[in-house]
Amino acid sequence: MELQFLGTGAGMPSKMRNTSSVALNLSAENEGYWLFDCGEATQHQILHTSLKPRKIMKIFITHLHGDHIFGLPGLIGSRSFLGGEEQLDVFGPKGIKEWLATTLRITNTHLNYELIVHEIEEGTVFEDDKFKVTSKFLQHVIPCLGFRIEQKSLPGKLLVDKIKELGVPKGPMLKQLKNGEDVYLEDGSLVLSKDVTGEPQKGFTIAILGDTSACMASVELAKDVDILVHEATFDSETGNLAKEYGHSTITDAAEIAKEAGARSLIANHISARFMPSDVAQLKRQGEEIFPGLLIAEDYARFEWKDDVVKQIE
Amino acid sequence: MELQFLGTGAGMPSKMRNTSSVALNLSAENEGYWLFDCGEATQHQILHTSLKPRKIMKIFITHLHGDHIFGLPGLIGSRSFLGGEEQLDVFGPKGIKEWLATTLRITNTHLNYELIVHEIEEGTVFEDDKFKVTSKFLQHVIPCLGFRIEQKSLPGKLLVDKIKELGVPKGPMLKQLKNGEDVYLEDGSLVLSKDVTGEPQKGFTIAILGDTSACMASVELAKDVDILVHEATFDSETGNLAKEYGHSTITDAAEIAKEAGARSLIANHISARFMPSDVAQLKRQGEEIFPGLLIAEDYARFEWKDDVVKQIE
Ligand SMILES: [Zn+2]
Ligand SMILES: [Zn+2]
Repeated sequence: MELQFLGTGAGMPSKMRNTSSVALNLSAENEGYWLFDCGEATQHQILHTSLKPRKIMKIFITHLHGDHIFGLPGLIGSRSFLGGEEQLDVFGPKGIKEWLATTLRITNTHLNYELIVHEIEEGTVFEDDKFKVTSKFLQHVIPCLGFRIEQKSLPGKLLVDKIKELGVPKGPMLKQLKNGEDVYLEDGSLVLSKDVTGEPQKGFTIAILGDTSACMASVELAKDVDILVHEATFDSETGNLAKEYGHSTITDAAEIAKEAGARSLIANHISARFMPSDVAQLKRQGEEIFPGLLIAEDYARFEWKDDVVKQIE
Repeated sequence: MELQFLGTGAGMPSKMRNTSSVALNLSAENEGYWLFDCGEATQHQILHTSLKPRKIMKIFITHLHGDHIFGLPGLIGSRSFLGGEEQLDVFGPKGIKEWLATTLRITNTHLNYELIVHEIEEGTVFEDDKFKVTSKFLQHVIPCLGFRIEQKSLPGKLLVDKIKELGVPKGPMLKQLKNGEDVYLEDGSLVLSKDVTGEPQKGFTIAILGDTSACMASVELAKDVDILVHEATFDSETGNLAKEYGHSTITDAAEIAKEAGARSLIANHISARFMPSDVAQLKRQGEEIFPGLLIAEDYARFEWKDDVVKQIE
């Protein structure tokens, strides 16, 4: 699993930061990429990465402000033009369906794949045998969702010594045992999966939130997550503005991460008024509460490996 | 008058060329800027120029394909956020009104200025005492307009010698005479405007066309213009594709310019499949028919001065 930030700015694009979008790269988990928000020019940002639009399988939209959705129609069209043929699922708050339907009709856009738009509320918005995504409404000036993405436990590793000892031959039986099935050997003896596999491996959990003031829903979504992605539109001196506009300070983000017991915090949605030196100051403010927090820049990639988040390159 | 190309690509953004937009800078004529088309990330392109979104006074849309309009909602919102308070007029084919209204409503966008959306057909789409803009439908896969922008004749220059000779005092009388009004001097003598002014100065004329196959409407819009901006999505080897998709080759563009008697031709809407070396070859193909034609790159600026088009910088 990797996270790549495509846009880490707030409200409007600047030369340093595009409007919101982050790609959850689940190639290693055979799920393609999932996008969270899609501000204008997200497809342009992708041109400067190794991501392929046709491999985007799901897009989750936190809320319907322009800086989170104006890149959606262009990306949906280009995905088709660039060879995308597999179904694309878009999840977002009420209104997303009407807007996309109107936009694709008015622009006469034809797609070579099935586009399914899901209008969602709080609860489980997606689940398969590998992942579960749940959502909650946050605290913003319009309805805005946060998402919690849980990878389900993976089967334990095969214990090579035990397998040899019991004489299990190489081939399909090993896969069955790894997947929890018991098997009979040729000599009629029964081998139990639990006897030849280690402990199930815990999957990762991430929370990716939309625009919000500090709120309990965020704490609940971020409970014990490996990574929390939380907005930080303001610094601690401008906390009154943050509340007024339904946004957070870097201190709010750090406090939510701490209260939720998150293992790591990546802040995004950084106002264009913060110059690079101000961002260092933002980081210091947040670190007083949550040491080791990271502030995302456009194109920054983070890897979750051996239970630790690490920035790549 | 200056033309600055903000996006010169076709269909999708590439690293080299953004989707369609060109700014007609009428600052010197006190009309702000007029934009022609507004593909996704036009506001991002503007960040890399000296143009100010709040000075965009009119936006003309040729047709409702995404690569010509997906930057419109973001730019409209940012123009307000960046201090735009003067009325903005958007002109475009039927459907633009519904799309913009739906988009601004769904995204809860509030503007600090009046936005007036004009759904237009063929004919005069705008006229004041300085300019006249007319449109015609071109030949594309959906309704697509081309525009002809005519600057009206400017009053002739005051003839300094004559003014001295007749004893006209400095002050408001000079302005009246320049604007075609006759005046009485203090001694009761009548001074005729035509006696103290030179010939009216001819204004410039430009045609900026949308996506189109070679067609007579283009020739009519471009009749004797100073500058014709014409698409060239294909090269002369791929003319069959051009016709099929409602586009032009560089040869088509050159022939239209020649037939119309245009004084200069700038080609845009260049496919991403053409590398810089191919673009040189495109230029050669076009020059066989229309010597001196120019191919626009993103950010290229062209000035019309002393009856000649010149690229700036
Ligand atoms: Zn936002
Ligand atoms: Zn086009």
